[in-house]
Amino acid sequence: MKNTRVLLARRPAGIPRESDFRVATAELREIRDGEMLIENLYLSLDAGFRNWMNEGSGDDVLPAMPLDHPVMGLTLGRVKQSRRSEYREGELLMARLAWEEYSISDGGDFIVRLDASWPYPLSYHLGVLGDTGMSAYFGLTDIGTPQPGETVLVSAAGGAVGSVAGQIAKIHGARAVGFAGSNEKCERLRTELGYDDAVHHRSPRLAEELRAACPDGIDVYFDSVGGPLLEHVLAHINEGARIPFCGAVTAYNAQEPLPGPSNLFELVLKGARLQGFMTHMQIDRYPEARAALAGWIDAGKLRSVEYVHEGVEQAGVGFCHLFEGKNFGKSVVRVRPDDVSDSARS
Amino acid sequence: MKNTRVLLARRPAGIPRESDFRVATAELREIRDGEMLIENLYLSLDAGFRNWMNEGSGDDVLPAMPLDHPVMGLTLGRVKQSRRSEYREGELLMARLAWEEYSISDGGDFIVRLDASWPYPLSYHLGVLGDTGMSAYFGLTDIGTPQPGETVLVSAAGGAVGSVAGQIAKIHGARAVGFAGSNEKCERLRTELGYDDAVHHRSPRLAEELRAACPDGIDVYFDSVGGPLLEHVLAHINEGARIPFCGAVTAYNAQEPLPGPSNLFELVLKGARLQGFMTHMQIDRYPEARAALAGWIDAGKLRSVEYVHEGVEQAGVGFCHLFEGKNFGKSVVRVRPDDVSDSARS
Repeated sequence: MKNTRVLLARRPAGIPRESDFRVATAELREIRDGEMLIENLYLSLDAGFRNWMNEGSGDDVLPAMPLDHPVMGLTLGRVKQSRRSEYREGELLMARLAWEEYSISDGGDFIVRLDASWPYPLSYHLGVLGDTGMSAYFGLTDIGTPQPGETVLVSAAGGAVGSVAGQIAKIHGARAVGFAGSNEKCERLRTELGYDDAVHHRSPRLAEELRAACPDGIDVYFDSVGGPLLEHVLAHINEGARIPFCGAVTAYNAQEPLPGPSNLFELVLKGARLQGFMTHMQIDRYPEARAALAGWIDAGKLRSVEYVHEGVEQAGVGFCHLFEGKNFGKSVVRVRPDDVSDSARS
Repeated sequence: MKNTRVLLARRPAGIPRESDFRVATAELREIRDGEMLIENLYLSLDAGFRNWMNEGSGDDVLPAMPLDHPVMGLTLGRVKQSRRSEYREGELLMARLAWEEYSISDGGDFIVRLDASWPYPLSYHLGVLGDTGMSAYFGLTDIGTPQPGETVLVSAAGGAVGSVAGQIAKIHGARAVGFAGSNEKCERLRTELGYDDAVHHRSPRLAEELRAACPDGIDVYFDSVGGPLLEHVLAHINEGARIPFCGAVTAYNAQEPLPGPSNLFELVLKGARLQGFMTHMQIDRYPEARAALAGWIDAGKLRSVEYVHEGVEQAGVGFCHLFEGKNFGKSVVRVRPDDVSDSARS
């Protein structure tokens, strides 16, 4: 059996480019005792994984990705063969595996068993009902706690996390304002995602436009990008503001450490807080988060927006799109475009 | 009647110097209807007030201090004459007034009425039982929440806030480690304030010494200074770390905005939080804080360390000492050195 994979051909210098990745085909070996074969159905494209493409970037979460190996990422797959007692054929898993058609795991990877009976498209498990949707949920439920009438500003508001965060802010009765990187995306935030207003984050008149979009100041800033935007936002926060902080795309691409905001003292003056979190630290609460998000979907209050790339070969290209601002909503790769089993119902 | 005052002679460029202040004597005018005359007994010297010595630094808390006017600061005084119905002669007040023997207030200033029956030296109301002691209390009680066995690192650990924060950390059963600016102070932290260990914050081997002093990492960093130290500390925080943040001495003296820490992303990786607070935002809880601190004093668990300057004329010199690292404990000025009424008991 052949296994098509996308390898890390070289470490990206700054923004990742298509040529940093290479498509390759390998023979799939037989599994051994204690292993299982997983047929990947969807790959999740997440900017955060850019971090582990750097030399020496290994940490408690992941080792630095080795060159000429398949790129690591979150995947959704089905157990095709199992020689591990705790997993049986046909089970649906979300895992931290790789950009490839088939993965072999000895169970030592980050793996979450999924309920195959849920009536949603499978890709939702990587998006609105997956890590990115849950990231929006935990950030706002545990840290942001938006109140009716408050202003919630969302970074990368058209992205996988931001597209859910803005909708949750609205569900809580808050005013939702989003940052996006093009006028077209700003328009989509308003018309497709229900944002009350949107600001181009590279506008030369950013301070002014931010003030106009948030006339009562900023109570919650959902920050998944870090970098210079945080400094602009700190200048407009209200007393008691909360800043759920879950990513730093700007930092992943930096060739050397970027200075932080020069006005952190605003946190003191406003009695405000900047609080980091990572969704996988809350793995015990995934059922709670999924149930809440699914309830909002069922009630028609939350919609999934996806940007689907067809074919595992497209993973590198799709990943680059995240940094070129071409994506809108959750970016996923459908591993086999001819795959018709695109629902847990099938 | 003469009124000796210390004026802001010029705006400090960076670190304040003695020549930025000037002693002057003025005739004290009669009070009018709606005013009261306050005899200042102690002046509190607080690095935070450096901020409002800058041109254009006015904010919600205070206006920028005008040149050739008495320097603003926290004071402890007694009502000497009152033509305001709500204050009567002899009452003890803590207020945001000025470096002068006598102040006239129309009641529009920040004024807190003090209980004159407490059996502590009057100066405690500006230190261990005042804003700085309460700052340590609120920062650790509300944000730091140290648990037995955790490591609490305290910036400016020999300062007014830090000298109390370290002792509170010990009361909670935590390991207390302090930063100080000289080897002599580091020694005093260990011998006089009960710190388990101390680190010279300008050591060329800071990272190494920090690791040695905090072998189990840092759970709480009580940050009252901001600046480059925060970047060093972030590299050593544990999962779930809390950083109560109440000052930024480094920033007050900066001639232009200083960049923030380049590794704020550590907050994400560790699920940690940086939370600003200002004691005066909690004015409703002053009685709770004072009662807790007084209880620890009575139980012999908390001691006050003071650095007393004699005579209102010394206020400028004493203020400069804060930035030269000459102080240890809470810095106050006894307005009249011959004043024997140094206790609420008298």
